[in-house]
Amino acid sequence: MRVLLINGNTSESITQALLAEAQRNAAPDTVVFAAKCTRGAEVIASRSAEVVAAHAMLEAIAAVKEPYDAVLVGISYDTAVAALRELLSVPVVGMTEAACHVATMVGSRFGVVLPGARNAAFYRERIVGCGFEPRLAGMRVVGSSAAALYADPDSSLELIRNASQALVSEERCDSLVLAGAALVGLHRQIQPDIPVPVIDGIACGVGMLESLVRLNFPKPQAGSYATPAPARLDHIDPVLADLFSHPAGQQS
Amino acid sequence: MRVLLINGNTSESITQALLAEAQRNAAPDTVVFAAKCTRGAEVIASRSAEVVAAHAMLEAIAAVKEPYDAVLVGISYDTAVAALRELLSVPVVGMTEAACHVATMVGSRFGVVLPGARNAAFYRERIVGCGFEPRLAGMRVVGSSAAALYADPDSSLELIRNASQALVSEERCDSLVLAGAALVGLHRQIQPDIPVPVIDGIACGVGMLESLVRLNFPKPQAGSYATPAPARLDHIDPVLADLFSHPAGQQS
Amino acid sequence: MRVLLINGNTSESITQALLAEAQRNAAPDTVVFAAKCTRGAEVIASRSAEVVAAHAMLEAIAAVKEPYDAVLVGISYDTAVAALRELLSVPVVGMTEAACHVATMVGSRFGVVLPGARNAAFYRERIVGCGFEPRLAGMRVVGSSAAALYADPDSSLELIRNASQALVSEERCDSLVLAGAALVGLHRQIQPDIPVPVIDGIACGVGMLESLVRLNFPKPQAGSYATPAPARLDHIDPVLADLFSHPAGQQS
Amino acid sequence: MRVLLINGNTSESITQALLAEAQRNAAPDTVVFAAKCTRGAEVIASRSAEVVAAHAMLEAIAAVKEPYDAVLVGISYDTAVAALRELLSVPVVGMTEAACHVATMVGSRFGVVLPGARNAAFYRERIVGCGFEPRLAGMRVVGSSAAALYADPDSSLELIRNASQALVSEERCDSLVLAGAALVGLHRQIQPDIPVPVIDGIACGVGMLESLVRLNFPKPQAGSYATPAPARLDHIDPVLADLFSHPAGQQS
Amino acid sequence: MRVLLINGNTSESITQALLAEAQRNAAPDTVVFAAKCTRGAEVIASRSAEVVAAHAMLEAIAAVKEPYDAVLVGISYDTAVAALRELLSVPVVGMTEAACHVATMVGSRFGVVLPGARNAAFYRERIVGCGFEPRLAGMRVVGSSAAALYADPDSSLELIRNASQALVSEERCDSLVLAGAALVGLHRQIQPDIPVPVIDGIACGVGMLESLVRLNFPKPQAGSYATPAPARLDHIDPVLADLFSHPAGQQS
Amino acid sequence: MRVLLINGNTSESITQALLAEAQRNAAPDTVVFAAKCTRGAEVIASRSAEVVAAHAMLEAIAAVKEPYDAVLVGISYDTAVAALRELLSVPVVGMTEAACHVATMVGSRFGVVLPGARNAAFYRERIVGCGFEPRLAGMRVVGSSAAALYADPDSSLELIRNASQALVSEERCDSLVLAGAALVGLHRQIQPDIPVPVIDGIACGVGMLESLVRLNFPKPQAGSYATPAPARLDHIDPVLADLFSHPAGQQS
Repeated sequence: MRVLLINGNTSESITQALLAEAQRNAAPDTVVFAAKCTRGAEVIASRSAEVVAAHAMLEAIAAVKEPYDAVLVGISYDTAVAALRELLSVPVVGMTEAACHVATMVGSRFGVVLPGARNAAFYRERIVGCGFEPRLAGMRVVGSSAAALYADPDSSLELIRNASQALVSEERCDSLVLAGAALVGLHRQIQPDIPVPVIDGIACGVGMLESLVRLNFPKPQAGSYATPAPARLDHIDPVLADLFSHPAGQQS
Repeated sequence: MRVLLINGNTSESITQALLAEAQRNAAPDTVVFAAKCTRGAEVIASRSAEVVAAHAMLEAIAAVKEPYDAVLVGISYDTAVAALRELLSVPVVGMTEAACHVATMVGSRFGVVLPGARNAAFYRERIVGCGFEPRLAGMRVVGSSAAALYADPDSSLELIRNASQALVSEERCDSLVLAGAALVGLHRQIQPDIPVPVIDGIACGVGMLESLVRLNFPKPQAGSYATPAPARLDHIDPVLADLFSHPAGQQS
Repeated sequence: MRVLLINGNTSESITQALLAEAQRNAAPDTVVFAAKCTRGAEVIASRSAEVVAAHAMLEAIAAVKEPYDAVLVGISYDTAVAALRELLSVPVVGMTEAACHVATMVGSRFGVVLPGARNAAFYRERIVGCGFEPRLAGMRVVGSSAAALYADPDSSLELIRNASQALVSEERCDSLVLAGAALVGLHRQIQPDIPVPVIDGIACGVGMLESLVRLNFPKPQAGSYATPAPARLDHIDPVLADLFSHPAGQQS
Repeated sequence: MRVLLINGNTSESITQALLAEAQRNAAPDTVVFAAKCTRGAEVIASRSAEVVAAHAMLEAIAAVKEPYDAVLVGISYDTAVAALRELLSVPVVGMTEAACHVATMVGSRFGVVLPGARNAAFYRERIVGCGFEPRLAGMRVVGSSAAALYADPDSSLELIRNASQALVSEERCDSLVLAGAALVGLHRQIQPDIPVPVIDGIACGVGMLESLVRLNFPKPQAGSYATPAPARLDHIDPVLADLFSHPAGQQS
Repeated sequence: MRVLLINGNTSESITQALLAEAQRNAAPDTVVFAAKCTRGAEVIASRSAEVVAAHAMLEAIAAVKEPYDAVLVGISYDTAVAALRELLSVPVVGMTEAACHVATMVGSRFGVVLPGARNAAFYRERIVGCGFEPRLAGMRVVGSSAAALYADPDSSLELIRNASQALVSEERCDSLVLAGAALVGLHRQIQPDIPVPVIDGIACGVGMLESLVRLNFPKPQAGSYATPAPARLDHIDPVLADLFSHPAGQQS
Repeated sequence: MRVLLINGNTSESITQALLAEAQRNAAPDTVVFAAKCTRGAEVIASRSAEVVAAHAMLEAIAAVKEPYDAVLVGISYDTAVAALRELLSVPVVGMTEAACHVATMVGSRFGVVLPGARNAAFYRERIVGCGFEPRLAGMRVVGSSAAALYADPDSSLELIRNASQALVSEERCDSLVLAGAALVGLHRQIQPDIPVPVIDGIACGVGMLESLVRLNFPKPQAGSYATPAPARLDHIDPVLADLFSHPAGQQS
């Protein structure tokens, strides 16, 4: 099974960190390989930069020549997940929704630790949009931004650890989601100090995709995720335009 | 007051219809002018084409040289509304959210008539995302797509009229939202046959924006709509890149 | 356009303050004029006094001889809004619902600063009833009652400012609604110190009504806001009785 | 124990029917006696007439000279329940909320049969306001108004029976609430044909009140139902004004 | 009227305390008698022990030879309430749901004081399952477990009193539910210090059952609480097996 | 990896069908083996029989001597899932929750086809309890009971196919969950005729467990799923009593 990890930003180091985490959690016969965007921001930190990233992700996916059986969206806003799920014929999962699915299979309510106050609304909206809000116990913000945490991992660990412990004791959550692609892998370092499962979206996403691939559902021909009608999109990257002309048809 | 109407698709005729509707409902001292995307689809009919449209809308906005005091998003998925609201310093409203605001000021629960079964989920998600779901009485789908309705206005009117009457009698809604930018203006033709207000998002959006401009709020400096930090976005349209470098600063 | 501002209490000074605020925010061609109740309490501070106010407001409206195109309910419990919306043929908006509509067009979630712990449940019930609860980030109570705050504006400002800042930093709200008719106008004084929009219901209500008047919907003939059947109400004020005999018919 | 049944309309025959139903369901040592409004409509059929009724109910309660231990609000919109609960020191329950409480103790989800399409929104709003909406399986409207049903009991029974059976088979509800004070007592006639409990609010309300009286809670001194501060209300019925001057103090 | 109080644990002293509380609140002509489980834990403190208790409660009920008109479930997780409501023909109420019903008839939102952090999720899930969550203002945990509080009533009272006061002042609740069968009766001791009603589930449950018995609904023959088809259950207690063979038929 | 499939009923043929379905969907290195209850009903069809099944499942689990890494609950009410998740140290998933997780990763809203009107409330309550209700588009009941469908597979297929098509066209769902352990495997037969994914809980559950095992979370030491304190349960099966004495400790 081949999983395509698509990162929404242009950072090579974050892409490599996401890829390493995905590979670490994949089944033995799963190959994970990565694509990253060739344009946009190095770290996505706003709704507007996310719009650019979404388009760039579609371009990057369209440019992938190797075959793949599933797509893991490695940006914690779950950017473009719905669009890719519609446009492709393979399963697509976002790292944050994957974490929430797992969180709700290991406990009753979960907490979220996230970087940067600005992001709190983004994650809440994603959780509400997925329908997980009844299971959300609370959120804690650490640091001023994902980039700031990424730049200083030692302080970040301390902040994340404290926020995690506060969520457990004050909000009585049964598990914790650590949000933010830039923080990938840190969950392993804080888990020993936290009395409930600490959940990373990349690790969860790989597993969810392996399950979905094995379930082998047909591409929907009705509903809001049915293959869209072929469409002519002008003045866009020709490879992406070709994908819109032959939606859900170029994977095998 | 100058309102910029931004259409998410490339159709000149729909843009002109939206503009005419907006002008018809504007206050005497409000000037509405339009921008449309220079790339993408002629009619947006999928989540994936919407991703391209969102980016194209940002480009189109960045390219606008005339001053404006507010932005009306003239695509019924309310594409890019959150991103524009964040990136710009002027009020931004989407046509569908505007219609819902008005609907909930004239009655208890509202119905939605919309083109194309595929779109039902998109509108529902938008309504849920805005928090209006407790006020949604029901939805009725007419025709197979917005494009199909647009191509045959006479049949469309009959379908819309029947769906509207069904919603009133079966779901007991107090008002009706007619969704879909391609249907703009049709509400006036069916209103005489419908016993509750029939609501068009463009007409509502102009009014909401006039109110917001007059309220003259400062651009937020905290929260999820604060001016984002200046960001370098590589390999994108240079005019848009410049907007990301000077967010929320180029309106006056 | 002529907007009738109806205050639910008997205080001349609050009525004048509400009127001044409404006029300050009205479009140039909008005339706002006020009616106040001739019986009831000087400041409404309980559910039971609100019942008396609601009836008194209907009497006061029935007694208005000048024509008007819209009604702004200037009591922050939005007292009698539903009844007036049903009974009259012109748009009717309450100041608190108007503030919530605006709050949800400028940000994701909003906070509410309100006078008197007793009132917290009233505003929450109104917000739930309108369906805005998914967008409510939190509430903070200042002072012991609206009357107490009104009597000491300097201390009030300090309390309101602190509560507003706490809501922004602790609940991460994108905007703030300042509830309570007695506090009208104070939002302008605290706005400079608050990093998100501070929203006053009167200012918002005027704008919402101007929009609704321009939309020019027909009076519903179906649904729960259809013109009620003419009814004979005995032993009430004859002018009000006449309105019940000719509902939705005496405006033009 | 003495229960005061307060009817919100001026109809003597409905008042007597409500009283008979209440007495039929009361415990042996419970005395039920009735008060009705001296002004307003004979049957309340609109939100606006309800406003007049609410005030009239406060006047009627204030005029009651006999002692009582609890108040049963015998109008199916639960008019003035919150105000009376606040103003008095004895338990107050509305007939529709009482029916919902019972419905949710005998099954999972309940249906509502109600007279007149116009009323559907009123009952839904009451159910949402009480928080019972997650337990509401569906509603069916019978007839054009409560008055029409009241005038023709035989046809009404047939309509109610059919609607009840439809709710059970189509919405799979576990019980049925029969809403509308004018229909009081009809539930006994249709119960034999309906395979789930048919619930009447008056019968339920008497029981809920008997429970509350026995629980003997102190009048709250905090929260939104604390005794309101004594208030001067001008130009109202002097007996009611006296109640506002001495709230929660004149029952024993 | 005869009410069977069924305790889910094997503790004789708690059973006696529950029985005493129930009798104290019963109407003069109501006889309450108790059954307790003959197997399981002395105090239920986990979801898994609750599973054993549920089965043991069915056995205990099946073994009761005296007639009864209603069943009060005296374990605060409301264990087996749905199963008993289905299997028997008499009304069945759980102590926690009963407390919530009463709480929502005396105020707007209620708080919950409960023993042991572990239990917070259990009570929340029960409240959500009943649909009362919109009325839940907040929860406070006292002590490490119900057993710990039971063992040291003096400290417990202090902890409960403080938590109650905090809920009132911080969450502005209108009433308080004191959860946990082991704490039965303590509400009377803290009520004098708490300015809102303090609610005990046993006292409420008796009243709710008296109401339900008097309403005298027929056993449902449709819906999810209809008499289940007679079923053969092998290798279980023969008396319980007999009840499954003759469901809803052995009460009179 | 070894997955223990636990069936809640005593039917050998259903157990074998569930096991075959689980094995068909397992990864190559996953071994699935089954345990079934030694007492209770052959097919669980009521809330009360489910109580007996839950206890029997705990006994059956306690009696398993072979090691296992995860538990799949093969009864569509997800009976005892929470209790097992708490009591054991390995991941536990129910077949219906697993289906809902998958449904919400392949589309926006899902429909449920289920056997027997009585069961509709059970599944709805499970879906609400898991928090998936915002994603539920609708339910359709087929046949009178699971047993009836199981006895006549040909008619069942036709009923299920029709109900599935109705859900897709009328409720516009993006996927379908086929509920009911007795129907296991039928989804493969109807999938060719249905234009959206048809989801079976057993297939999904295996995949979810494989993911959870690989994530390798520590057993929680806080929250509502922490290892419960060792407890003495009297007069129960000694092997189960031993598990309560050494909770979460006998897996490796």
